[in-house]
Amino acid sequence: MKFGIFGGARRGLHDITGDSTGYRDFIDYIRAADENGFHNVFLTEHHFTGQESLSASLNLLSYLAACTKNIRLGTAVAVLPWHNPVLLAEQVATLDVLSDGRVDLGVGRGYRKPEFDAFCVPMSEAWDRYNECLEVMLKAWNTKGRFSHEGKFFRFKNILVEPTPIQKPHPPIWVAAGSPDSIARVADNNYSLLLDQLASDAQVEQRSTAYLDAMAVRGHTRDASRIGVARALHLVKNEDERNAAWARRATSVKNIADLARRPGVVLDERFELDMKEAAMIGTPDEIIERLNALAARGVDNVLLLNVSATRKFLEFFAREIMPHVNATPLKRVANA
Amino acid sequence: MKFGIFGGARRGLHDITGDSTGYRDFIDYIRAADENGFHNVFLTEHHFTGQESLSASLNLLSYLAACTKNIRLGTAVAVLPWHNPVLLAEQVATLDVLSDGRVDLGVGRGYRKPEFDAFCVPMSEAWDRYNECLEVMLKAWNTKGRFSHEGKFFRFKNILVEPTPIQKPHPPIWVAAGSPDSIARVADNNYSLLLDQLASDAQVEQRSTAYLDAMAVRGHTRDASRIGVARALHLVKNEDERNAAWARRATSVKNIADLARRPGVVLDERFELDMKEAAMIGTPDEIIERLNALAARGVDNVLLLNVSATRKFLEFFAREIMPHVNATPLKRVANA
Repeated sequence: MKFGIFGGARRGLHDITGDSTGYRDFIDYIRAADENGFHNVFLTEHHFTGQESLSASLNLLSYLAACTKNIRLGTAVAVLPWHNPVLLAEQVATLDVLSDGRVDLGVGRGYRKPEFDAFCVPMSEAWDRYNECLEVMLKAWNTKGRFSHEGKFFRFKNILVEPTPIQKPHPPIWVAAGSPDSIARVADNNYSLLLDQLASDAQVEQRSTAYLDAMAVRGHTRDASRIGVARALHLVKNEDERNAAWARRATSVKNIADLARRPGVVLDERFELDMKEAAMIGTPDEIIERLNALAARGVDNVLLLNVSATRKFLEFFAREIMPHVNATPLKRVANA
Repeated sequence: MKFGIFGGARRGLHDITGDSTGYRDFIDYIRAADENGFHNVFLTEHHFTGQESLSASLNLLSYLAACTKNIRLGTAVAVLPWHNPVLLAEQVATLDVLSDGRVDLGVGRGYRKPEFDAFCVPMSEAWDRYNECLEVMLKAWNTKGRFSHEGKFFRFKNILVEPTPIQKPHPPIWVAAGSPDSIARVADNNYSLLLDQLASDAQVEQRSTAYLDAMAVRGHTRDASRIGVARALHLVKNEDERNAAWARRATSVKNIADLARRPGVVLDERFELDMKEAAMIGTPDEIIERLNALAARGVDNVLLLNVSATRKFLEFFAREIMPHVNATPLKRVANA
């Protein structure tokens, strides 16, 4: 099993605080991840939160490219409706060059109502803006020579986007999906899949299988390493810490739900599932058991939303937990 | 005198080529500048050139923040009409946090006709777009709490731009100017001044004096270190190399003129001046003489557009040239 870091956006957790010291701590945390065999890091992008959330994720990743060697550098996600597609393609490609081909480009259409309001973009335009932005970026990377674009939101004439990425024709695209339809679309495009931290282990298995099946049907390799499974992680030593961790988790999940609040979305059932099954809260032995259960369901890349974002924690994790987790996904999911 | 590097955009010179090796060389060049006492680096931003010009300058600067200690990290310039002001403010502030307050933000409205055509932006909108973008960025940095913006090109509602920069309230703003009116506007706003590589030494002195006088009138300190003077530099060993360097220089200047070509701009006279006076082409002794002549005219920060963008060259320059250049600007210009 490959482990990754999911860089969340809540202050005081794994969040990046706005002062220089906060950034230094986070940078040291990712350096430690790199040095301790973690496979990937995915950084979030949020705007105007008032909680000093990370906004310019590609700039922090560019810095991290200089102080890490092997860890893959990802966005989860770059929220396309806020970006000019050619500027974003230039930034991503530059990061790919700077990191010698370590970029994983997670993209999304945004889900936070306050961000849409602040950017004065109607949420009803999210899909159109997302689709047009991604279309232009892919055209920039897949076209030999110059091209033009006449869209609803952007126009470009006779352009050629530089630099070209190191990964050819472009860094892997990662997309978050949960429903059967959206998973099918991810496979249609041969993108990699991000599964969210709220889905239960059983849902993760179901969705992974759906993705791998859909990929196989479309002639692509069944490759479980192209599925990143986000999991909240909180190591505890005793029952008091366990109870405190669950209480904290309840608040986190409520915050996530509040930020995505919009008509028609019911979160109660999901919330319950998560409280019981999705978060990994426990002693090291219990966490090893949870990770082996995920491995048994075919999971090959767990992305940790880790409440203890320190070098010391990652060294402990690499030493005491990683070696005890099954490295081979079961045939049932990973092979045709 | 403080020395800086002006990161130009022509392939095969100090340009950054699109392959990873080209970036590696350029990065090592800037590391060498940092290690050898150079004060600042200013990177250009160009798009769609077909010559692998640097497009995402803030991403390369973010990388450089991680592998340099003292050198100031600048843009020259960030072309505002291409950017969303809040995304750019976030990127600049993030770089300022990552570099612990080393950002110099050069901004401009763009001058290359092909870029305007490619972005489908009429050149007639350049000033309006530039002004609105800068206005929003400064509002983001100068406002305590949230603000809204209703402009011609952008609308934002109740936003708060994160992170806040390390330099308070924001990194110094640098603006290129040449005419008396434009220099007066730079002083009006208490910005720093970039003088171009085509102006003769006499023009540089005249413009520097105009800027410092205008600053003094407005109650600001006369500070010659806030004027960056771009100068092409080409060390030669003999007359053959000197002739080749002048020929190469003629082509460069012609290319610059072509890129800025638009009705009403006459470049012949300027071109002649440059050919005779602006470029520093010569032996080390001749370059020392040229730099001392600039110092005598009050110049305190020369930004080198250096044809030999190598570590070895900078080590030579730091050892053989820097110590022989007058470090104290003349009173005539630097003091009231």
